[in-house]
Amino acid sequence: MQGAVLYGPRDVRFEEREVPKITKPTDAIIRLSATCICGSDLWPYRGIQLIAEPTPMGHEYCGIVEEVGSAVKSIRPSQFVIGSFFASENTCPTCRTGYQSSCQHRELVGGAQAPLLRVPLADGTLIATIDTPSEELIPSLLTLSDVMGTGWFAADVANVKPGSTVAVVGDGAVGLLGVLAAKQMGATRIIAMSRHESRQKLAREFGATDIVTERADEGIACIKELTNGIGAESVLECVGTQESMMQAMNSTRPGGYVSYVGVPHDVALDGEQLFFSHVHLHGGPAPVRRYLPELIELVLNEKIKPGKVFDLTLPLDQVAEGYRAMDQRRAIKTLLCP
Amino acid sequence: MQGAVLYGPRDVRFEEREVPKITKPTDAIIRLSATCICGSDLWPYRGIQLIAEPTPMGHEYCGIVEEVGSAVKSIRPSQFVIGSFFASENTCPTCRTGYQSSCQHRELVGGAQAPLLRVPLADGTLIATIDTPSEELIPSLLTLSDVMGTGWFAADVANVKPGSTVAVVGDGAVGLLGVLAAKQMGATRIIAMSRHESRQKLAREFGATDIVTERADEGIACIKELTNGIGAESVLECVGTQESMMQAMNSTRPGGYVSYVGVPHDVALDGEQLFFSHVHLHGGPAPVRRYLPELIELVLNEKIKPGKVFDLTLPLDQVAEGYRAMDQRRAIKTLLCP
Repeated sequence: MQGAVLYGPRDVRFEEREVPKITKPTDAIIRLSATCICGSDLWPYRGIQLIAEPTPMGHEYCGIVEEVGSAVKSIRPSQFVIGSFFASENTCPTCRTGYQSSCQHRELVGGAQAPLLRVPLADGTLIATIDTPSEELIPSLLTLSDVMGTGWFAADVANVKPGSTVAVVGDGAVGLLGVLAAKQMGATRIIAMSRHESRQKLAREFGATDIVTERADEGIACIKELTNGIGAESVLECVGTQESMMQAMNSTRPGGYVSYVGVPHDVALDGEQLFFSHVHLHGGPAPVRRYLPELIELVLNEKIKPGKVFDLTLPLDQVAEGYRAMDQRRAIKTLLCP
Repeated sequence: MQGAVLYGPRDVRFEEREVPKITKPTDAIIRLSATCICGSDLWPYRGIQLIAEPTPMGHEYCGIVEEVGSAVKSIRPSQFVIGSFFASENTCPTCRTGYQSSCQHRELVGGAQAPLLRVPLADGTLIATIDTPSEELIPSLLTLSDVMGTGWFAADVANVKPGSTVAVVGDGAVGLLGVLAAKQMGATRIIAMSRHESRQKLAREFGATDIVTERADEGIACIKELTNGIGAESVLECVGTQESMMQAMNSTRPGGYVSYVGVPHDVALDGEQLFFSHVHLHGGPAPVRRYLPELIELVLNEKIKPGKVFDLTLPLDQVAEGYRAMDQRRAIKTLLCP
C-alpha cells in the first residue's frame, strides 16, 4: 500500500508503506473512506516541530472496518466507523470524566493518510453508525475525527451559551469550525478574526456576525469596541502562538473564558498578567471522543455541515500538493481520496 | 493619628500620619474596630516587591463609619461596615458579573493599619451589618475583607462541590481558609500541604482530612497516591511562586481545576505543559465584594470561625513586631488593635 511519509521540512512523499496489521487484540484495521491534512500537520511540515525519522502522516479518519482483534467487542467488520485522533479506552477514571484525550492508556493514531489504518483501543475509540452514510456526508463525518471536535471543544470550554458574545482568534479550519460550534450553541454575536477573503466568507456562512481584520493591539481594540469596551465573554484561541494567545487573553472581559486548542509552540504565559486578566483558561488536546455521538447525530441530520471547510479535494497520491496548498494558504483544508 | 508606614525591606515604622479626610463625595471615613497584616504585605516587607516611597500599609478593615461624602447613599455614620481591599462601584458591567476586583473604576484601599481609614466608592464597597456585632465576632468579620474572601474565591473557582477531593497548596492564612471554605462547600477529602505543626493543627480544625508534608515531586506523588493515581479534582494554589504553581498544576487530575489567588511573583507558565495538563485555570485578585453578604451571614450565625487564623494579637503600635512574627513564620496572621 502507498501512503504519505514526511521526511523533513516540506518533504512529504507518497510511497510504499507496510500494510497495517492487528498488533494487539484491541486493535481494528479500517479502510479509509476519506482522509485529510490537519493544520497541526503543518508544524512538522514547516520544520517548526522536528521529527526524528521519516514519519507516516495523518490522524483524521473514517471508514469501513476490515478486521478487528480478538478482544474487540463493540465493533465488527463492514461497519462504518469514526474515531478520535487520540485512541482511548473510554473506561479509565480520566475517560469517565470526559477527558479521553488524556486517557491513562491513550495512543496517538498515526499514518491515516493512506488507504488502510490501524486504530488501537478500538472499543473505546471508534463509534459505528447504524447504516453506511451516503457519499456526500463523508467529508463532514471525517471532520468529527479531529477538526470539528476540536472547534466544538473550544466553544464548549469557552462557556459559549445561548446569547453569548464570542471572539475567535485564528481563521484556520479549527477556528472556522469554532465559529460553527458557537453558532450551534446559540451565540448571538460571533466575531471572527481573519484577513483572508475566502475564510471570512466561510466564517460568515458558519455564523460569524462580525469580521475583524486587524491584529495585535489594533485587533484587541476592535474587539473591545464591539463589546462595550470590556471584551468578549468567550474567546477561542485556535492558533497556538504567543501572539494569538495574547490576542485572545486581551480580548476577553474580566471573568470571561479563553479556550485554547492549538498545541502551543513557544508560548509562555506571564503569571502576573494572567492573574490580573481575571480570565478562565482551559484547553488542551480536544477530547473528541466525548462529543462524537452528539456530533454524528448533528451531521447525519444535516444540522451542521462542517465538511465545507474542505476547499480542496485531491486524490491521495497528490498529498504533497495538498500540503503545499495549505502551507501557502491557498487551501483552508485538503480532503484526500484514497 | 499614628499608623504603619513601610520605608524599605523589614523597615515598618509606627509614626504620625495625616488623618484621612473625605476627598471625593463617594468616600467614607471609618474608625477601625480591628485591622491586621496580610500575607501579601510580606512581599514588599521582604523587598521582593519594591516600593517607590514610604508607603502606608494595610488593606483589611472593618469598623464604624465616622463620616460619608455627599454622594454616599447606602451607608451612614455609626454603622458597622466591612468592605473589600479593592474598592468598587458594584454597578459597572464587570462588577455586575461578579468581578468587582476588576471594576472599571476600582481603587486599592490603603493605609488600613491605622485608627482611621478612607474608603473610596463607599456605596459599592461597604456592607453595613444591621446591628453592631459583638466584640468576639470582630476578628472573623475582619477576615472577610480579604483573606477569608480570597480563600472562599479559591475554593469556589476550583469548582469545589459536595463530595469533592481538594488539595490546598500553601499553609498561610489564605490556604488555611481555603481549607475552611472547601469544607463548608461540602468537600469530603481535603488534603492540606503543610510542614508546620501549628498550621497542620489549624488545617485539621478547619476540615483537612489529610496532611502532606512533602514538597515538589515528592509532594505531587503523595497527592497522586491519595487520589487513585490521577490527582485531585480541585487544587487551590495559595502562594504565588513558580514552585507552588507547578505543584498545584501537577497535583490536579486532567479536566480538574486549579485556582490561584496569590499574586504571582516571577511565575511563567509553559504553554505546552499547561495544554497537556488539561487543567482548568482561574484566579486573580479575589472579588471579595461578591461573597461578602453570604460570608457575613455565615460569621454572624457562627457557621464559620475564620478569625481563628489570628494566632497573634498586638496593639497597633507594635505593628513592626507583627510583621517580624509573620516574616519569621512565628505567627500565621497578626491581628492589630487600634
